[in-house]
Amino acid sequence: MHRLLAQARAGRPRAVGRLVSLVEDDDPRLPELVRALAPGSGRAHVVGLTGAPGVGKSTTTTALVTALRAEGLVVGVLAVDPSSPFTGGALLGDRVRMQEHALDRGVFIRSMASRGHLGGLAAATPAALRVLEAAGCDVVLVETVGVGQSEVEVSACADTTCVLMAPGTGDAVQVAKAGLLEVGDVFVVNKADRDGARSLVRDLRTMVSLGSPAEATREPGSPWRPPVVQTVASTGEGVGELLAAVRAHRESQQASGGWQRRRRRRAREEIEALALARVRRRFRTLTGAPLDRLAEEVGDGRLDPYTAAAALLDGAPTREGPRGRSAGGAE
Amino acid sequence: MHRLLAQARAGRPRAVGRLVSLVEDDDPRLPELVRALAPGSGRAHVVGLTGAPGVGKSTTTTALVTALRAEGLVVGVLAVDPSSPFTGGALLGDRVRMQEHALDRGVFIRSMASRGHLGGLAAATPAALRVLEAAGCDVVLVETVGVGQSEVEVSACADTTCVLMAPGTGDAVQVAKAGLLEVGDVFVVNKADRDGARSLVRDLRTMVSLGSPAEATREPGSPWRPPVVQTVASTGEGVGELLAAVRAHRESQQASGGWQRRRRRRAREEIEALALARVRRRFRTLTGAPLDRLAEEVGDGRLDPYTAAAALLDGAPTREGPRGRSAGGAE
Repeated sequence: MHRLLAQARAGRPRAVGRLVSLVEDDDPRLPELVRALAPGSGRAHVVGLTGAPGVGKSTTTTALVTALRAEGLVVGVLAVDPSSPFTGGALLGDRVRMQEHALDRGVFIRSMASRGHLGGLAAATPAALRVLEAAGCDVVLVETVGVGQSEVEVSACADTTCVLMAPGTGDAVQVAKAGLLEVGDVFVVNKADRDGARSLVRDLRTMVSLGSPAEATREPGSPWRPPVVQTVASTGEGVGELLAAVRAHRESQQASGGWQRRRRRRAREEIEALALARVRRRFRTLTGAPLDRLAEEVGDGRLDPYTAAAALLDGAPTREGPRGRSAGGAE
Repeated sequence: MHRLLAQARAGRPRAVGRLVSLVEDDDPRLPELVRALAPGSGRAHVVGLTGAPGVGKSTTTTALVTALRAEGLVVGVLAVDPSSPFTGGALLGDRVRMQEHALDRGVFIRSMASRGHLGGLAAATPAALRVLEAAGCDVVLVETVGVGQSEVEVSACADTTCVLMAPGTGDAVQVAKAGLLEVGDVFVVNKADRDGARSLVRDLRTMVSLGSPAEATREPGSPWRPPVVQTVASTGEGVGELLAAVRAHRESQQASGGWQRRRRRRAREEIEALALARVRRRFRTLTGAPLDRLAEEVGDGRLDPYTAAAALLDGAPTREGPRGRSAGGAE
């Protein structure tokens, strides 16, 4: 483990990949790894890229990598796939477009599925980010594969979240319905050379300026107003402006204190997810399989699930100690 | 509450709607409600409908409602929207296609968002199903809105899961990648009159017969082989065959014991979700806001999240009792 960590710190891609695998699998050595990584972590700017399939997330990611590499920065790409039963390996095979960066020692590309991690995305993503940071990444691009709630969850791991859209892949109302208006720090209309781009930009600007849901969840008192940037990621057009907007967001956040508040909120979610994963693990390793017995009674309609949940907690204290008052009675 | 419950049992739609709202909001009276509903629950056949946007889930649901109503059965429709920040009301407005059933006293239609429920979908959906059962539903159709992991989660609440596809909305490989091959008990190729339907049916049949992932998660020793049914839901074509396949699945499951095993597994997940929600609630109501303090330390890189999680559990025992050995040391 320590050898692996030393190799990852030296920027050896294979070691980085193996450490992310430990995260995916919720390996028993993970706490030790994270403890070793924690001091000094938090240096990299974590940029989330999210949006419906077909908007050009991979192409935009690749274009951003090219731009960042041109400045000599070390870049990590974490493609998070919360819904797939397949692990990273399979997905990596698809990422043909990333091949131009495959041999670059300053780029680390890794896919991650989170099914194996009891703490889910909220626990797995920050741990993987720490690995990429340890490898020296200045910026980590977190790209979500798939859609749905997971998109919103992944954005919670980013310092700056870019919400991507493109003409013909849904309108601004759908973005709002998916809850993405609330999480976007920068909105990107990709494929801006296509029909319908102009009206998409206009609709987005209107919705962002109305901004009621965004105001509620974004840092209170933040002076940041999410811009709408136009790109043609396949040609690189507008990618410089996108990068400038992402950096302007960081500066604004750091000046307002929002940066630190958001990182603390992320830490809060990570801690909670790890604590809950630990409780869940205890449920499953209780002797006498009380969860199975309770499930039988609830499944057959002999017991209600709330009483069963209280009994389960009663049998699985989160810390050791003599049996006291029942959890059922205490609430 | 008891009056509301009595009204719901008498089939009053407004009371049913209000009880589902209690579920959505994780109302403090929910345990009481679920305790009252638990005895005798489990009568209805819960049928999940899942698939990518555009495959015709709503149209298929409507066609199934028509077919079931023709037999005089009482039908519930639960449209679960895990990703939307909007609650049921807003969505119901969209469901123009359902209007033909809106005045039918034998049909209960309700959308449900689950963001308000600390236990998430795993806890909210079974509670909503119990409400619809209490209203007398013989069959409840659970339709997911949106895509992603949530689809797979919702299917976990169904006795029989129908995975829908249509020509032009993605191929069989995408269904496999979304993890839907594993959860399908019946596969439906809707819009079967369109180009590409035949090859879609063929591909699906091949993948289902290969069926390696399905075998792993489906009931061991189950004699059920998921059929591929073709429908044109908008005209009602094939809907009778679909209903027959759904019922054949129930009979096969009941004969093999898979029915009961699956319901117990669902109960297991529900209990666990409720127990974890309770732990989470305790984290958030701890005096002295230790979670905020720990998040600050982890966010600033002064503490690692695993040690923080252990400290959080140490301060928030799941049952009352004198302080014993620390949870951190016990694992």
